Amino acid sequence: MTFPVVGMVGGGQLARMTHEAGIPLGIRFKLLSDTPQDSAAQVVGDVVIGDYRDLDTLREFARGCDVITFDHEHVPTEHLRALEADGIPVRPGPDALVHAQDKGVMRARLDAIGVPCPRHRIVSDPADVVAFAAEGDGFPVVLKTVRGGYDGKGVWVVETAEEAADPFRAGVPVLAEEKVDYVRELAANVVRSPHGQAVAYPVVESQQVNGVCDTVIAPAPGLDEGLALQAEEMALRIAKELDVVGHLAVELFQTRDGRILVNELAMRPHNSGHWTQDGAITSQFANHVRAVLDLPLGDPRPRARWTVMVNVLGGDYPDMYSAYLHCMARDPQLKIHMYGKDVKPGRKVGHVNTYGDDVDDVLERARHAAGYLRGTITE
Amino acid sequence: MTFPVVGMVGGGQLARMTHEAGIPLGIRFKLLSDTPQDSAAQVVGDVVIGDYRDLDTLREFARGCDVITFDHEHVPTEHLRALEADGIPVRPGPDALVHAQDKGVMRARLDAIGVPCPRHRIVSDPADVVAFAAEGDGFPVVLKTVRGGYDGKGVWVVETAEEAADPFRAGVPVLAEEKVDYVRELAANVVRSPHGQAVAYPVVESQQVNGVCDTVIAPAPGLDEGLALQAEEMALRIAKELDVVGHLAVELFQTRDGRILVNELAMRPHNSGHWTQDGAITSQFANHVRAVLDLPLGDPRPRARWTVMVNVLGGDYPDMYSAYLHCMARDPQLKIHMYGKDVKPGRKVGHVNTYGDDVDDVLERARHAAGYLRGTITE
Repeated sequence: MTFPVVGMVGGGQLARMTHEAGIPLGIRFKLLSDTPQDSAAQVVGDVVIGDYRDLDTLREFARGCDVITFDHEHVPTEHLRALEADGIPVRPGPDALVHAQDKGVMRARLDAIGVPCPRHRIVSDPADVVAFAAEGDGFPVVLKTVRGGYDGKGVWVVETAEEAADPFRAGVPVLAEEKVDYVRELAANVVRSPHGQAVAYPVVESQQVNGVCDTVIAPAPGLDEGLALQAEEMALRIAKELDVVGHLAVELFQTRDGRILVNELAMRPHNSGHWTQDGAITSQFANHVRAVLDLPLGDPRPRARWTVMVNVLGGDYPDMYSAYLHCMARDPQLKIHMYGKDVKPGRKVGHVNTYGDDVDDVLERARHAAGYLRGTITE
Repeated sequence: MTFPVVGMVGGGQLARMTHEAGIPLGIRFKLLSDTPQDSAAQVVGDVVIGDYRDLDTLREFARGCDVITFDHEHVPTEHLRALEADGIPVRPGPDALVHAQDKGVMRARLDAIGVPCPRHRIVSDPADVVAFAAEGDGFPVVLKTVRGGYDGKGVWVVETAEEAADPFRAGVPVLAEEKVDYVRELAANVVRSPHGQAVAYPVVESQQVNGVCDTVIAPAPGLDEGLALQAEEMALRIAKELDVVGHLAVELFQTRDGRILVNELAMRPHNSGHWTQDGAITSQFANHVRAVLDLPLGDPRPRARWTVMVNVLGGDYPDMYSAYLHCMARDPQLKIHMYGKDVKPGRKVGHVNTYGDDVDDVLERARHAAGYLRGTITE
């Protein structure tokens, strides 16, 4: 067979689940992973252990790959350009990916194409922050390092000029944003291929706990149809304007006054799309693979009325296996997805999906299983 | 984590798809494969290349596995007993597996527990075959080598004493069976765990072409509810009486006079269960893994009104990739499962699953895709 080789940079759970989705597609999957213990490295056949920050390692890895894609956004832009210069397709490409790497670049670009965002400005010291606050509704103000933040890291909500000093200590550029008065967070997930085909998944509600995604409900309950359509169209437009290839997650605020504003972008399979593994005709992982290979995309529509995803975080007990057995016995329809990671308190070690006709029941089943696995529910 | 290690003997597509199903379960999967090019060896991380007929190789492989299971039935029974003596759980165990390895043992055992089978007898020469024919409705008679046959190999339908000479040339025991007057073939698939929990999938219709499974329709269209229940109960009873652990496929004849007779047994995931990957809440592969680990089993119920599986056989063109692209574009809901095998005419290289509310439409979509991939349909 002459099926192509997809080179995945990064050995986390997104790579693991992308490999899983690639097996039925018959594609060959090659992984660049930091260590042999990484989540994906445990389950992939063709693994190179190496540092993605080293250009020679990347180049050597890319040889023999038909396309390079990513588990994370941390590969330096100049390395991606070097791979492209070598003739290796990089998807998403560096010109797209920079918008998921640098929040300053992302905000400037979304402003330029007229996509609504929270009020924002690059700030250089606490006095700038005070001025920014004064021009709006005052404090609190959200400060973010423009690069490197995720899951609540690199983000501060500050109430005073004194508190605003912290983010500047690292000496990296800082973005100030209004603290949006939102009723909930949503995510609009789309997938786009190089020849411009694109599909949109239903808009979901995403609930965060301590800055970390906790629960996703698909579709977002009670979301006005017009607003849902607006969110999908916005995500499709961002994908097109930024020339994204692969999965794009657009994290959104639904404001109290009925608008939607873009919070963050991620150009890879995303936690807000894990429900698609069991809840959609084609998962985000399968469609990401299809997109980066410029294959026709699969149907993104849901298979159930409601699907709920709840993340499983590490608790105090390192051994989840007996809890796992209990959860399977309690709910034979439960879909558990474990990442093969060592349990550390608060670490994402898996997720569960449930689906059905009654959203309250579906939510309860997923929350019970995730809580039991973590150890916060004991009966 | 202390998740267990499942050791899979055999590197074919069943092992490949079992690995795929094991990834979300978080179990560790170790493979014993003949060559690194085998279907499963391409996608599994922990692969040992070696000969399963060599006891030392098996013993070395089994060290560090929590349980051993199989992609095929060809491991010698005495080797399995040796592994058990070493303290390694072998699932299914040798006492169960022998019924899937030796058709003579299987028929004797099913007779003993009162499960209806075609009329049969072990025969030792053509004269025996003539006598067997004369005691029933005469020729044709079906002759099978008791070991080693699959996909129509090791099976002869003979019309005369002269034709009956062939099967004896190899010098292995031969089983004679009446040629059953059947209206169609069915399969009853069940999964059973060591502590005795068992689940039954809906009974399916299985259509063969030249002795090779071609199409599976789930559930079997128009099957009388009483007969379906009888088939499920029969499969559950066989699993219990034979102490099967893991997936058991019971291939059945539905006779013109409304009975069901057991044709073959397979104690592993089976071609007649591939539809469960996209059509059931829990796939046969996931439930096989759960069973061999004595984990609670998953819900076997269907997710769609109809699911159809059609095998993709190799055709005259070694490169299926462009046909594959065409099929994805034509039917965004199509589920393709490729095995990573080189295309050879007639070789099973993949299968497709389709599902929906209209059985004719679902059948047409699956047949078109499989035919297009093989090259027998060109538009």
